Amino acid sequence: MGIIVQKFGGTSVGSIERIRHVATRVIEEADKGNQVVVVVSAMGKTTDELVDLAKQISLQPSKREMDMLLSTGEQVSIALLAMALQEKGYKAISLTGWQAGITTEEMHGNARIMNIDTVRIRRYLDEGAIVIVAGFQGVTETGEITTLGRGGSDTTAVALAAALKADKCDIYTDVTGVFTTDPRYVKTARKIKEISYDEMLELANLGAGVLHPRAVEFAKNYEVLLEVRSSMEKESGTIVKGEVSMEQHLIVRGIAFEDQVTRVTVSGIKNSLYALPTIFTALAKRGINVDIIIQSAGNADITSVSFSIRTEDLPETLQVLQSLEEANVQYESGLAKVSIVGSGMISNPGVAARMFEVLAGENIEIKMVSTSEIKISTVIDEKNMVRAVEALHEAFGLAEEAAAVRA
Amino acid sequence: MGIIVQKFGGTSVGSIERIRHVATRVIEEADKGNQVVVVVSAMGKTTDELVDLAKQISLQPSKREMDMLLSTGEQVSIALLAMALQEKGYKAISLTGWQAGITTEEMHGNARIMNIDTVRIRRYLDEGAIVIVAGFQGVTETGEITTLGRGGSDTTAVALAAALKADKCDIYTDVTGVFTTDPRYVKTARKIKEISYDEMLELANLGAGVLHPRAVEFAKNYEVLLEVRSSMEKESGTIVKGEVSMEQHLIVRGIAFEDQVTRVTVSGIKNSLYALPTIFTALAKRGINVDIIIQSAGNADITSVSFSIRTEDLPETLQVLQSLEEANVQYESGLAKVSIVGSGMISNPGVAARMFEVLAGENIEIKMVSTSEIKISTVIDEKNMVRAVEALHEAFGLAEEAAAVRA
Repeated sequence: MGIIVQKFGGTSVGSIERIRHVATRVIEEADKGNQVVVVVSAMGKTTDELVDLAKQISLQPSKREMDMLLSTGEQVSIALLAMALQEKGYKAISLTGWQAGITTEEMHGNARIMNIDTVRIRRYLDEGAIVIVAGFQGVTETGEITTLGRGGSDTTAVALAAALKADKCDIYTDVTGVFTTDPRYVKTARKIKEISYDEMLELANLGAGVLHPRAVEFAKNYEVLLEVRSSMEKESGTIVKGEVSMEQHLIVRGIAFEDQVTRVTVSGIKNSLYALPTIFTALAKRGINVDIIIQSAGNADITSVSFSIRTEDLPETLQVLQSLEEANVQYESGLAKVSIVGSGMISNPGVAARMFEVLAGENIEIKMVSTSEIKISTVIDEKNMVRAVEALHEAFGLAEEAAAVRA
Repeated sequence: MGIIVQKFGGTSVGSIERIRHVATRVIEEADKGNQVVVVVSAMGKTTDELVDLAKQISLQPSKREMDMLLSTGEQVSIALLAMALQEKGYKAISLTGWQAGITTEEMHGNARIMNIDTVRIRRYLDEGAIVIVAGFQGVTETGEITTLGRGGSDTTAVALAAALKADKCDIYTDVTGVFTTDPRYVKTARKIKEISYDEMLELANLGAGVLHPRAVEFAKNYEVLLEVRSSMEKESGTIVKGEVSMEQHLIVRGIAFEDQVTRVTVSGIKNSLYALPTIFTALAKRGINVDIIIQSAGNADITSVSFSIRTEDLPETLQVLQSLEEANVQYESGLAKVSIVGSGMISNPGVAARMFEVLAGENIEIKMVSTSEIKISTVIDEKNMVRAVEALHEAFGLAEEAAAVRA
């Protein structure tokens, strides 16, 4: 008995049949005597189709009107899911973002939730209804419809769970949980039972697509107990919470990786005090995501800087850098980033050394390194990526059959 | 210089190309220095597609959730039209029903507009923006999304024109105006320049689909000057207003007709005081639209009644009538209804006689007659329908080349 928030993504509600299936998952929780709030995304490809319509009219449609357009996607899903639940004899009611009391700042396309007034949701819950809320959307204080940007429905679910002081927030997705690494590449990858918010945050930031970093941060700040689990299979998923039990307290919790990385090096920069902010501001304005940045000391007046970007952003990056007439720009594509994540690193010096050792043992050259308290990222040749991940997965005891390396 | 409300139906915004075209029609009015409010329906078949989705989940989906679902259709249209106007360099903003301040009663699927708070629309107009409002939808005082039912977008447009005290409300459609009769059947049919609200109301009720009766009634009550015109062609359409100029004051303004009519006769009814209300209440509850009703006197205790229905409703009608055990039910299908409409009839006795004369001259038997102050309807054999309309169109001076018969 308690309040459960469930979130189902676009794939989970991608067809009428799947919406019916989602209804059965919702009913399972309701039948346990829980008050259930369900957050859903737009059906399957709906958002893409709406974006496509807009692009036919304007290459740069107004963000305010894009929010007006895109917010319809979730509104369709909530109505259909409410109908599916009613058809099975359950009391259900759908609410748009503004009806659910979700107030955001007025940053169209990427608004942050400011406040949730839960009066209306609580009233319906108390009347015995399952409440279905449109994810990804809210309303400003002046009555403008906003969307929350990428991962918005995850954020809606977690924010609602926080506001309602829910017992749990279940994020249903098309995988069965968070894995030690990508099982499509590494056969010995196994599902993680429990993971801390910080570790999940690093993995999410590294592109382990099951949960959006914003949602994880929200969950961390409000201590919302999360479970990432499959909408199709019944097995339990991965619990995300503050303190992870000692038994699970491995030094390394997971390994993330991505290909299509390019390293850009700008050398011969004079007057770096002004030049460096100029470069990175210009790149940010064009929406180019700079990842690792390494500045070498060089001599007093002339410096050089290396940074990694996604390879698809290379042409635009070079365009931006053309303005630096005196500097010398070089780049290397065909790279990959491999990162190990684990809160156990904080109390275990020598994890970086162990990582370099493992890669050296595989004859893999490291081109860039970046570290945080609970993460070490390396940039290496793309062709070595999977081999590096496999070796690290084995060496840090993540493989299914291996004995866990304890903190 | 003034306020103009324009309404574009689903066909007019049925594709990206058509939305761009609608934008040019809106801009024409804005360029004249007018403040323009545009009401749009859902794109083409969108509403049908959404209904189809719902029907896959439930044969009788909740009306509240249907409104949640269907109201997304107009929301897509308004966003796209706003983008199209912005792309052409005009300031434009879209508003959903609730954002436009359209309050309705809480009758989901068929709500009536209670009030329009125009503060927000006026503010945007004063800022020089073209305001685009979602037709067919509103919000209750408790924040529930409602739809207005059939002809809802017409009603939204007229109600906005009334609330804003607009100079004119232009209803753009796929025909060039209101015709004396259906030009697909009668070649000499011509476009009516001006028509009174009452005449338009009768024609609209008779199925001259260009304008919904509810919208006409609203326009009449608030004296909103309407023009029904083509969204594709530039020629002027049909003006609908209170007083129509004498020159146009024909006895008969137009002729409406429909086929697929069935006459049902119930005879031998005992205790008609109770039996008749029972019959017609039962039919109404099943959503069967009874048109003409004629009760014959008969003797004191036993009476009979004839009424016309649409032929498609016959099986259900017979089902309802089965409960009347003692009565005798007969029916005749393959009939049609032909009606003449004109406010000139009020001051011209003998119009009915002239109508019967014309039909007799064509050897057409009249099976039922019904009259109002400005309308005479007859039920005849379906096979005679077009011939009857042609003869009446000619006789009452409606043909393009004929001299008008003045009041």
